[in-house]
Amino acid sequence: MTADDVTLADLPLREDLRGRSPYGAPQLDVPIRLNTNENPYPPPPELVDDVAAAVREAAQELHRYPDRDAVALRQDLARYLSASTGVALSERNLWAANGSNEVLQQIMQAFGGPGRTALGFEPSYSMHPIISAGTRTEWVPTPRRADFSLDTAEAAVIVAERRPDIVFVTSPNNPTGGSIPLEELEPVLRAAPGIVVVDEAYAEFSSRRSAVELLDAYPAKLIVSRTMSKAFAFAGGRLGYLAAAPAVVDALQLVRLPYHLSVLTQAAARAALRHADATLASVAKLSAERERVAEALRGLGFIPVPSDANFILFGEFGDAKASWKSYVDAGVLVRDVGIEGHLRVSIGTPEENDAFLAASKEVPR
Amino acid sequence: MTADDVTLADLPLREDLRGRSPYGAPQLDVPIRLNTNENPYPPPPELVDDVAAAVREAAQELHRYPDRDAVALRQDLARYLSASTGVALSERNLWAANGSNEVLQQIMQAFGGPGRTALGFEPSYSMHPIISAGTRTEWVPTPRRADFSLDTAEAAVIVAERRPDIVFVTSPNNPTGGSIPLEELEPVLRAAPGIVVVDEAYAEFSSRRSAVELLDAYPAKLIVSRTMSKAFAFAGGRLGYLAAAPAVVDALQLVRLPYHLSVLTQAAARAALRHADATLASVAKLSAERERVAEALRGLGFIPVPSDANFILFGEFGDAKASWKSYVDAGVLVRDVGIEGHLRVSIGTPEENDAFLAASKEVPR
Repeated sequence: MTADDVTLADLPLREDLRGRSPYGAPQLDVPIRLNTNENPYPPPPELVDDVAAAVREAAQELHRYPDRDAVALRQDLARYLSASTGVALSERNLWAANGSNEVLQQIMQAFGGPGRTALGFEPSYSMHPIISAGTRTEWVPTPRRADFSLDTAEAAVIVAERRPDIVFVTSPNNPTGGSIPLEELEPVLRAAPGIVVVDEAYAEFSSRRSAVELLDAYPAKLIVSRTMSKAFAFAGGRLGYLAAAPAVVDALQLVRLPYHLSVLTQAAARAALRHADATLASVAKLSAERERVAEALRGLGFIPVPSDANFILFGEFGDAKASWKSYVDAGVLVRDVGIEGHLRVSIGTPEENDAFLAASKEVPR
Repeated sequence: MTADDVTLADLPLREDLRGRSPYGAPQLDVPIRLNTNENPYPPPPELVDDVAAAVREAAQELHRYPDRDAVALRQDLARYLSASTGVALSERNLWAANGSNEVLQQIMQAFGGPGRTALGFEPSYSMHPIISAGTRTEWVPTPRRADFSLDTAEAAVIVAERRPDIVFVTSPNNPTGGSIPLEELEPVLRAAPGIVVVDEAYAEFSSRRSAVELLDAYPAKLIVSRTMSKAFAFAGGRLGYLAAAPAVVDALQLVRLPYHLSVLTQAAARAALRHADATLASVAKLSAERERVAEALRGLGFIPVPSDANFILFGEFGDAKASWKSYVDAGVLVRDVGIEGHLRVSIGTPEENDAFLAASKEVPR
């Protein structure tokens, strides 16, 4: 037996991993990719120039470890989030990692883990239960209403009853698109005995107020997570962050791997933040396109779920898997998120959306 | 109570984290930094140019998620490692993450975790027990000989007896510097019931053969971890990697966070690998300096531990903490690694080493 002959069955893998497949949307070579909620607009040339210049400067010191605490980047993130939410925040309220997945993993390592539970309202972001499993936190799935909205009064009752160590509320919710007003979030926060993570990955696409406004009211409970992957058009740069009480940031520093953010990531993210106005200009365009696509889908007899994000969940399909395949055959990659009778489409450029709508006329229902 | 008033004690932190401090060497503003085993030579201008050009090109697609499997980077790493070890490897044998710490964390998540144990020979790399704790793997510390060398025959007996799920062998060992010949490694591999991680972070500084040569003989057990932080002068870029059987790489893909390596990291690391010859030219200089510094320390009456790496552990100090402080006062930052009577110095440029040796004449013993 050589290295090539060994199979997973020959390895001392953890039992709970056996038979599983790696997470990730199919990365297919299809002309129109509307499957991972990326921003379809490439970074403007001046942002690319600025990233390249910042990285060139940072690269002079590549032989040295980065600032372990990424203080300058956290200051910039605090400035952006303060300006966009109206809540005064400093770098002591901010924490960042390689994508919001790593942020969420650190939260689970600090506040979850063996013997602890995390509760989420499904369907929601499928990485929540996966990261929960990865940190050996018991996952407690709780259903949303049939229309995918969240009955937060009932949610508060369930949270009070189940007493999870961590509650996840995704707003706007991925993959269904709806968001939650702050006044409806509060009963859940009051009921929660531990941490409440409000995952605001798509917040920039919503006109609702951010849960960041509630940080002073629930300082020992609330964590608001964000990402630069969506509205910021920085999916390739991998930068997730959160806002919370400074003590929460202290707690995460106990579990983060030292030097987790490279000098390149820190420099490039800071450059991207300097161009926030230009990048976020796409948000209004995408929101308008979302309404146009939803309306067109309705016109074709589909039922789009009301969305506050840069994607739309829509149905009904008799066989969503088969319809997904028809879209691929038509050169359009949408996402089968595993919700019966539904598919999810990311909002692209007007041309991409037209191609999607044209394909939608032909796919089997 | 507002967000600023909350303390760690108010948070539902895991009990085992209470009272702990974040890991990391003090980052002090001292002229001569010889504390984190960085390569003291900045990247050559042509490498900086190439990194900047590669990042500029990658930045055009920043709005898109990166290649989740980092195939091109893994091909380049396989090419480098094949050339330097003489063992034919492909990208199927290679895996990479944000620093070797993340590589090790993924190994622990796949093969360790609650109810499982990891064994290491101490003193060794202090992140091994920390990542073990972070993944809730029980850590089994096993002492080295009084001179810090490893009695691998006895180690094999202990491994056979304790049956750890994961064994760590660091070669060259950090922070003590000695490495292990392949024929002495084999008894440990034969005795191990599970995974054996040979941590070769400093391999380029040693003239010994790499454990990569043993992959075909122990394909279901052996993982060799490496980093670009040391010899490659890429500490700021955060790129760790490993070589193993393809099935091990498959296993790690079950626990890795999706899109963990940014387009910037992938592009910059590939650029750095194109300049491997130039960067690694510093290795011979540093090894020669290591011998000069060891000899000079002996001349001053110190006892340096024989080292195969880019650092030297040396003693004896009556009060290592006080002597560390004296070095800082003299403008030289060395590392107090917590070994009684000893300090560790990274090998710097000849001028930095001279400054260290000058300070060594004055520090209290």
